[in-house]
Amino acid sequence: MGEFELIRRYFLPLAGQQKSRTLILGPGDDCAIQRIPAGRDLVFSMDTLVEGVHFPRNYRPDYLGWRALAVAASDLAAMGASPECFTLALTIPTADEQWLAGFAGGLRRASKAFGLVLAGGDTTSGPLTLTLQVHGTVEQGAAIRRTGARPGDLVAVSGTLGDAGAALDYLNEANPSPDIAAVLDRYHSPRPRLALGISSRGVASAAVDVSDGLLADLEHILEASEVGARIDSARIPVSPHLKRLKGDAALGYALRSGDDYELCLTIPAECWRTAPDAIRNELSVIGTVESRPGLVLDGKPCGADTGFDHFKGSP
Amino acid sequence: MGEFELIRRYFLPLAGQQKSRTLILGPGDDCAIQRIPAGRDLVFSMDTLVEGVHFPRNYRPDYLGWRALAVAASDLAAMGASPECFTLALTIPTADEQWLAGFAGGLRRASKAFGLVLAGGDTTSGPLTLTLQVHGTVEQGAAIRRTGARPGDLVAVSGTLGDAGAALDYLNEANPSPDIAAVLDRYHSPRPRLALGISSRGVASAAVDVSDGLLADLEHILEASEVGARIDSARIPVSPHLKRLKGDAALGYALRSGDDYELCLTIPAECWRTAPDAIRNELSVIGTVESRPGLVLDGKPCGADTGFDHFKGSP
Repeated sequence: MGEFELIRRYFLPLAGQQKSRTLILGPGDDCAIQRIPAGRDLVFSMDTLVEGVHFPRNYRPDYLGWRALAVAASDLAAMGASPECFTLALTIPTADEQWLAGFAGGLRRASKAFGLVLAGGDTTSGPLTLTLQVHGTVEQGAAIRRTGARPGDLVAVSGTLGDAGAALDYLNEANPSPDIAAVLDRYHSPRPRLALGISSRGVASAAVDVSDGLLADLEHILEASEVGARIDSARIPVSPHLKRLKGDAALGYALRSGDDYELCLTIPAECWRTAPDAIRNELSVIGTVESRPGLVLDGKPCGADTGFDHFKGSP
Repeated sequence: MGEFELIRRYFLPLAGQQKSRTLILGPGDDCAIQRIPAGRDLVFSMDTLVEGVHFPRNYRPDYLGWRALAVAASDLAAMGASPECFTLALTIPTADEQWLAGFAGGLRRASKAFGLVLAGGDTTSGPLTLTLQVHGTVEQGAAIRRTGARPGDLVAVSGTLGDAGAALDYLNEANPSPDIAAVLDRYHSPRPRLALGISSRGVASAAVDVSDGLLADLEHILEASEVGARIDSARIPVSPHLKRLKGDAALGYALRSGDDYELCLTIPAECWRTAPDAIRNELSVIGTVESRPGLVLDGKPCGADTGFDHFKGSP
């Protein structure tokens, strides 16, 4: 099967499965064309997944298709952007039809679930690597940046943290218990917080998605905003599954492991009080922003080496 | 050196070296933000380069930095788009500072030469692979597509063809002759035809960049436009260097080898007569579009297997 046939059979159907409000030319030409409505900004982010680094070797292709788009879409959620379309650069060792069908299936489900239409990309042969770029839009000036946190703001996180990181200990489990199955699902099928991100525009002062670990990602907000924060470990949301599986170690996963793709937001106290239930019900307040730089956990300063770095490895 | 330090040292300077008219938030947040002026469309394209597939192993990093952006920018030229910004996904085995300095240097020169500002990206560890996405803009509806060729239009190409393909025979030449040095330069330092692309808006009916080989890329226009073409090998532009190096074989390189990044355009005859010298002087007319499908070279039909396909290899 040649490159063009491969694209035609597995990827063009993704371009046609749903309409995008802004994509006016999809795959098949030298470039794609998007028309951004007047009064809106284009918001975009690029993410790479490498086999053996970001996902295990021989990883199920349908999981990979979903995960790849979910990971990229999570950055749109963190800016409060409405999803529009995406591009895919797929590098694969051989054109294995069974693998491609599985991958395209996972990608198609994610594409529909997140409202992201395939706009174009590139298919090449080489070691298994994916790069996706996602495009969203926001009203001009309304994107939630990392720079807006101010002393006195509350620090909040969505959902529960640590499940996806704990899942790495169980990837080869043949007969997973219900608790193990629950954390594995968090790893294989992350659900980017797109609706929450959109609802948080005009409410949150800063946002980041939790991809590298809560402490590491919160540090990104603090550095960009030139502030510090004090957080309380007893308030970090941990799932009952993780508690049962890891006991006292659960907190470490929730603080330091990545791949959960929840949102960490800072919210001015007055905005929190008046925030709609759609936001309040999704979030746990875990601390407050302070003017003094640095991150303080249960009264003790946290070091800088708090998350995953590709050229240093895990801490 | 960690991932963030690496980005800070080698890539953030590229984001700051020049202003973009449309990029309002560059690297450092979850997403970048671009504001497309009212009345213009966003035009974008993604390209991947894999070590050992798209460029030789141990390729000079400064050449790679230039080439990677040139290859991607060439797709903007083919749409007639004005360059704006780009994203870079760089996957490298180790954070080798000498390599990174060379790569960033080549990329910086290309970025300035093409008017493309670094908007963001991702840096990961793994087998050497690059994916770039370039963003340009055109007046709404003015992008040159592959679908617009009509019977009677002239077929034209810019510059000369085949040099970059011939260069592959001399990549390890220790003391290149002037002719060999000239074709090597075409391979190492391609110059995407951005100015010609912009000038061709409103003149050309269809366009493609010559990345896989003239016959293969012209076929893309013919298929998309549902037409055929008749071209004359005597009119294919070949450089004196290529003629001296390859003699009678030069034409084969010009027809079938890729990597030249010239433009192949179709132009209605009346537009050609009135086209400005800026366009006429850059182009050679090599044939005409016909209603009967298929590509005819010197009166004989050409087969479909005319260019490079990643999952079949070279013809």
